[in-house]
Amino acid sequence: MKPEECIDFFFKPESIALIGASPNPEKLSHTILKSLRKMNFEGKIYPVNPGYGEIEGLKCYSTPGEIEDRIDIAIFAVPARSVLEILKGPVENIKGAIIVSSGFRETGSGGKKMEDDLRALLKEKGIRAMGPNCLGIYDTVSNVDTFFIEREKIGRPVREGVSVLTQSGSFAAMIMDELAYEGAGVARVVSYGNKVDVDESDCLEFLERDEATKAVVLYIESVTDGRRFLEAASRCVKKKPVVALKVGKREPGARAASSHTGAISGMYEAYEAAFRKTGIIEVASYEELKDACKVLNRYSPVKGKRVLIITDGGGVGISIADACEEAGLRIPELSETAVRKLKENLPAFASVRNPVDLTGSVRDEHYVAAMQETPAEEYDLAIVSLLWGPPLLTEGVAEKIRNFAESCGKPIIISSPGGKFSRELVSVFTKTGMPVFFSPESAVRAAAVLCGGNGKQE
Amino acid sequence: MKPEECIDFFFKPESIALIGASPNPEKLSHTILKSLRKMNFEGKIYPVNPGYGEIEGLKCYSTPGEIEDRIDIAIFAVPARSVLEILKGPVENIKGAIIVSSGFRETGSGGKKMEDDLRALLKEKGIRAMGPNCLGIYDTVSNVDTFFIEREKIGRPVREGVSVLTQSGSFAAMIMDELAYEGAGVARVVSYGNKVDVDESDCLEFLERDEATKAVVLYIESVTDGRRFLEAASRCVKKKPVVALKVGKREPGARAASSHTGAISGMYEAYEAAFRKTGIIEVASYEELKDACKVLNRYSPVKGKRVLIITDGGGVGISIADACEEAGLRIPELSETAVRKLKENLPAFASVRNPVDLTGSVRDEHYVAAMQETPAEEYDLAIVSLLWGPPLLTEGVAEKIRNFAESCGKPIIISSPGGKFSRELVSVFTKTGMPVFFSPESAVRAAAVLCGGNGKQE
Repeated sequence: MKPEECIDFFFKPESIALIGASPNPEKLSHTILKSLRKMNFEGKIYPVNPGYGEIEGLKCYSTPGEIEDRIDIAIFAVPARSVLEILKGPVENIKGAIIVSSGFRETGSGGKKMEDDLRALLKEKGIRAMGPNCLGIYDTVSNVDTFFIEREKIGRPVREGVSVLTQSGSFAAMIMDELAYEGAGVARVVSYGNKVDVDESDCLEFLERDEATKAVVLYIESVTDGRRFLEAASRCVKKKPVVALKVGKREPGARAASSHTGAISGMYEAYEAAFRKTGIIEVASYEELKDACKVLNRYSPVKGKRVLIITDGGGVGISIADACEEAGLRIPELSETAVRKLKENLPAFASVRNPVDLTGSVRDEHYVAAMQETPAEEYDLAIVSLLWGPPLLTEGVAEKIRNFAESCGKPIIISSPGGKFSRELVSVFTKTGMPVFFSPESAVRAAAVLCGGNGKQE
Repeated sequence: MKPEECIDFFFKPESIALIGASPNPEKLSHTILKSLRKMNFEGKIYPVNPGYGEIEGLKCYSTPGEIEDRIDIAIFAVPARSVLEILKGPVENIKGAIIVSSGFRETGSGGKKMEDDLRALLKEKGIRAMGPNCLGIYDTVSNVDTFFIEREKIGRPVREGVSVLTQSGSFAAMIMDELAYEGAGVARVVSYGNKVDVDESDCLEFLERDEATKAVVLYIESVTDGRRFLEAASRCVKKKPVVALKVGKREPGARAASSHTGAISGMYEAYEAAFRKTGIIEVASYEELKDACKVLNRYSPVKGKRVLIITDGGGVGISIADACEEAGLRIPELSETAVRKLKENLPAFASVRNPVDLTGSVRDEHYVAAMQETPAEEYDLAIVSLLWGPPLLTEGVAEKIRNFAESCGKPIIISSPGGKFSRELVSVFTKTGMPVFFSPESAVRAAAVLCGGNGKQE
């Protein structure tokens, strides 16, 4: 790859120009400035707006050309027409642009013309660009946050290992807010919108090399260059798991996608084949994508599909077993040795088959005994389901399970459905990076991702 | 039906005996006593325990026979063997029993023998009974709560119209806690456990007649008497919607179910056929069952499968459309008239097809305009999706949408994914009984229930 084709600098910027900066708290640019400061972005920040001499204590410039510094990222938070006007002026010191402005291709033929002009102008000036019609970058590694929605409205996840690529800004906002709410994190999120220049393949190529990214999660409406995407994805999959949700699969989802970012969704079957060929784990829904983010922050995929289920509620155990079967996972029968050891170490009320049912008489230590006494070679991952009703179960169980999970070589997925009380108790898991899933089915979706995707799709 | 076969008195008791009552707050019976008082149960409460003269200010009796009153419900919260002993004594004044004790059939052959003895004894004494190995009744109409788990641990839903029948106590606790957490309610919940006497058909026959129950939701491991269930379900379906989740569909879910309440799950295909024949709406997962409860509290099923989608986030709209297609629902194209009216009444940035995308520039009134200008005859129900990021969107939109929903003849399903901020804002919906769904897919699951179930199953 030629150095000028590489977009790595977007993810380690030393200087950011905020074009359209404003002291007015209602302006998007103001939210971005506040966010960058809240993130403790360590590089230089240059507000640009001919109307002001200073904004929030920072010197304000009339044009980007006035700044006597190289600008790694120029965030354009001005109307569509102004983006073009500014780019026609002196912008030689701008290396990359994030154009959050809407009003381009997604609005119809007039907008499409403007976007074509924008593409030509960027090429002429040698500027790499994300957007337009996007939220840009939320990056827990470089501390960049160009998402122009206040963090009071859309939560910002803590730092973890999964990076998310998405065409849709609303999708990016939705998943960030939910991950933050559930105590889960991300490495980097890129919302690249209309893809006037930077696309999924550019980002994938970077994330393949990126050490902070342990897994990649993609929301795809359409792919710009199929062949390049296949190559980038194949290379990336060799280094880390890649999960994809293709939306706009059929009419009318496809119809909506086309008006949304101006994309033509293409035949779903072609995407499905490409995912299978490259080893991308395909998920079928937003819920599954979110569950994938949570589980891949903590665990790597496993080789088999054998699930050990441990529960304190028989009905919930059955629901998990049913959902596993539905997803193409297996609930192996335990060996005679395992059953004997479990019988010896668990009280008589426990049901010592798979699912292991510790019942409402459970005590904290029974969870650990059940995990310890089942030989590791008999399963590939475990789903541990906790209902917090049993009278002798205390919040101490969470630490016990977490300690076992840390020493055990297998992924332990926590399923803890319920309301206020259980959400408070499970925070001891999430605080240490152990993901918690709030329905039997979501725990199984996470398990299916680790087992390489829904078996029924194969 | 003979009067003695009718179990209606369980749902309008005038007197409750609590057998095994105790002043010890760690005893299950103590939790039940606290719950009955918290519910403001208006009938008489008689603690029974030979060890005490008084409990919590109530006179305590040595045996049920000592109570000089008819006892509508005797709650047995004593060990399995004591249940049998007490029933052998003077119990002529007991009409019905709820035996929450475990240690019967679910524990193996010894327990099965005890359960057979229990059945014979109940028959001999002419006592109708729920359980054993159950939580019993949570009833927002009669203010009965025999669920022996503290409400600090498992939330209690407010009064609404859906009644839930379940074999599994853990399932009952899980769904009650989650419904309470999400601001949704129930009419009556019955956890009948091992079904020594009262079973799903008895309950269905009562709920068919019950005016407080607007819809019935069933969690089924196995059905005791297939023919009677078919008859009861067919009659009930004529009066109100009935939704069912069959668990233990296949090995090994079926294997787990058999150890759990001692049930043999039977061939799933037979259940599927029975559901179809009787007009029961089948759901495939716990999540779907929960969504069904929420939506049926407010709306009745519709005749068609045409969904209007209104969103402020393009990507989210596409996900909803995809999920609708997947569930066999239709996203009709809007008529030319509708498109013209929408164009006239919505700003240029809005995409006026189905899904209607109001974009991040949305204002509160655009949601109402989009609903008002789409002719009601073009859709059967609407999914209105709100992301709260758009800067001009205020919490006032919730009241506007709610007002429109109240005047409009179609079900309006709110989809509002997100974290802390959005959950606070949507409480204006839930407070007035409008259910809110927290993922695109859950809103679609609710829509599919109203449209008669997942089309792909037909």
